[in-house]
Amino acid sequence: MSEYSKSTRTKIKDCFKFLSQEAREFSLGGAVQSLDAVPSALAFYREFVSPNKPVVLRGLIDHWPALTKWSPTYIREKMGQQTVTVTLTPNGYADAVHCGKFVMPDERRMTMGEFLDALDHNDHVPGVPYIQKQNSNLADEFAPIIDDVESDLSLGSEAFGKAPDAVNFWMGDGRAVTSMHRDPYENLYCVVSGWKTFILIPPTDQPFVPYVLYQAAKYKLKDSGEFEIEDDTDSGQVPWIDIDPLRPDLTKYPDFANAHRYEVTVNAGETLYLPAMWFHHVRQSHGCIAVNYWYDMDYDIKYNYYKFVEKVMDVVK
Amino acid sequence: MSEYSKSTRTKIKDCFKFLSQEAREFSLGGAVQSLDAVPSALAFYREFVSPNKPVVLRGLIDHWPALTKWSPTYIREKMGQQTVTVTLTPNGYADAVHCGKFVMPDERRMTMGEFLDALDHNDHVPGVPYIQKQNSNLADEFAPIIDDVESDLSLGSEAFGKAPDAVNFWMGDGRAVTSMHRDPYENLYCVVSGWKTFILIPPTDQPFVPYVLYQAAKYKLKDSGEFEIEDDTDSGQVPWIDIDPLRPDLTKYPDFANAHRYEVTVNAGETLYLPAMWFHHVRQSHGCIAVNYWYDMDYDIKYNYYKFVEKVMDVVK
Repeated sequence: MSEYSKSTRTKIKDCFKFLSQEAREFSLGGAVQSLDAVPSALAFYREFVSPNKPVVLRGLIDHWPALTKWSPTYIREKMGQQTVTVTLTPNGYADAVHCGKFVMPDERRMTMGEFLDALDHNDHVPGVPYIQKQNSNLADEFAPIIDDVESDLSLGSEAFGKAPDAVNFWMGDGRAVTSMHRDPYENLYCVVSGWKTFILIPPTDQPFVPYVLYQAAKYKLKDSGEFEIEDDTDSGQVPWIDIDPLRPDLTKYPDFANAHRYEVTVNAGETLYLPAMWFHHVRQSHGCIAVNYWYDMDYDIKYNYYKFVEKVMDVVK
Repeated sequence: MSEYSKSTRTKIKDCFKFLSQEAREFSLGGAVQSLDAVPSALAFYREFVSPNKPVVLRGLIDHWPALTKWSPTYIREKMGQQTVTVTLTPNGYADAVHCGKFVMPDERRMTMGEFLDALDHNDHVPGVPYIQKQNSNLADEFAPIIDDVESDLSLGSEAFGKAPDAVNFWMGDGRAVTSMHRDPYENLYCVVSGWKTFILIPPTDQPFVPYVLYQAAKYKLKDSGEFEIEDDTDSGQVPWIDIDPLRPDLTKYPDFANAHRYEVTVNAGETLYLPAMWFHHVRQSHGCIAVNYWYDMDYDIKYNYYKFVEKVMDVVK
């Protein structure tokens, strides 16, 4: 490589740092904001959605019966015999890179009663259980308790001008971790019980958070109670991020040191607006229950710029 | 330059074309949209301001008395003796590159009656006159007719969440042209009488619309009735665009061929939302009258990306 081209590449990489720093200094700020009063849909859109800034909203779901009702006892009473889909992993990491593969969890159908027993470590279910099926499971498997929450959030439907694309129920083990990734959805994430801690990285930092292709695989729980990893040849290669923001391997990913990490804990009764395309890593309290609303994102000028940065990354990688 | 570095630069330039094309195909569309019904402030913000898309709004100013009242006769009656600030140029080009300099117009104080005479080519005022003082002149020099319009547009103040930073009155000669430039303002441009034709280029096309530094200068109308150009040493060097989109010099600026030009004519009673940072070139009917509202833009993620593109341009220029 010539000195000249080295210098061009280095200068482009400096541009990535400039973008990250300007976004933080002039737009995003140093920490995730919290609001004690629910903003109007217009103010929410203008101050947070349009500039793609996360925010914690208090008071949005105060009126939900779920906030007081959803104890394990109540859920067992209403849902005990209901069949639900539960993911199982040996280590709490579903949809994460492990041994050089992108490993998806095993999925089991069991009654809600069996799932709650598993959370209580009544050991007939091995591994770490997590209800995290992201296919609008609330209206489907959780129909018996759906009236305790809202099928839509008026703030969301008014601001985004559409109904949510999916509404999901989440309940899981304290060991379950969602590995870092981004979604092409605007996300309103409501914690009903316990807490979730999000590590967030803005899309303007994407040059420091590389996606790499991995062979898709799946955990398979054997009758012996042990997990095996099996290649998922149907899925082929999957792009994913092999960086744990809690213990980043900076030898392998030195650029990740440039990524600015925002950390925010969302407690019961609070809602996180998690903007589309933000990288996020999530951990939670044991038995944490949450409901989230996904709205299709707009593929607007922000997205065009995002893809431009991605393309420039390809040129200098 | 090595083959390798050439290739990196070429690849980055391909990224610029990619950004331009994606923005047009997925976000901006092929033509400026028009709306026959005024949208809600939220819909306006979500569909146009947030994605930085121009739109022509009909019906927004239908109730303005100015639409029926502002004839030359009425203005002469109400304003004839009022002193106003008028720019004068020999050729209609104020604030434009001429003979390698950025030349600002001469400015004269005259009565509105004298200005209307000049528009009628009663030749005691040489050159091309234009009332285009962009310092909120409406509330100041045009106080006698201000009640015929609104001091603010409710759509604007509600959507942007603030009052306009400036409200300007524009009236000028059909020969007067506004050369291509961009403003760091959200602009609601209301045509009261006649028409304005805007050539618009999106900010995602900035790599093809280069700003260059020019010595600042000023037209000076001599007693002989001729114009001289005098350097303005106080202003020093000014960055401007020396491309006339009606007759682009593609030998000098070959990349400009990649810029996508939107053209839209805004007629009396219509309002153009001209988003911040869009390049624009404006021509007009003779005696066209307009009032525009400038709102401070938000220096948000879109602006951060814009500055990133600018920085990458610097690297490969």
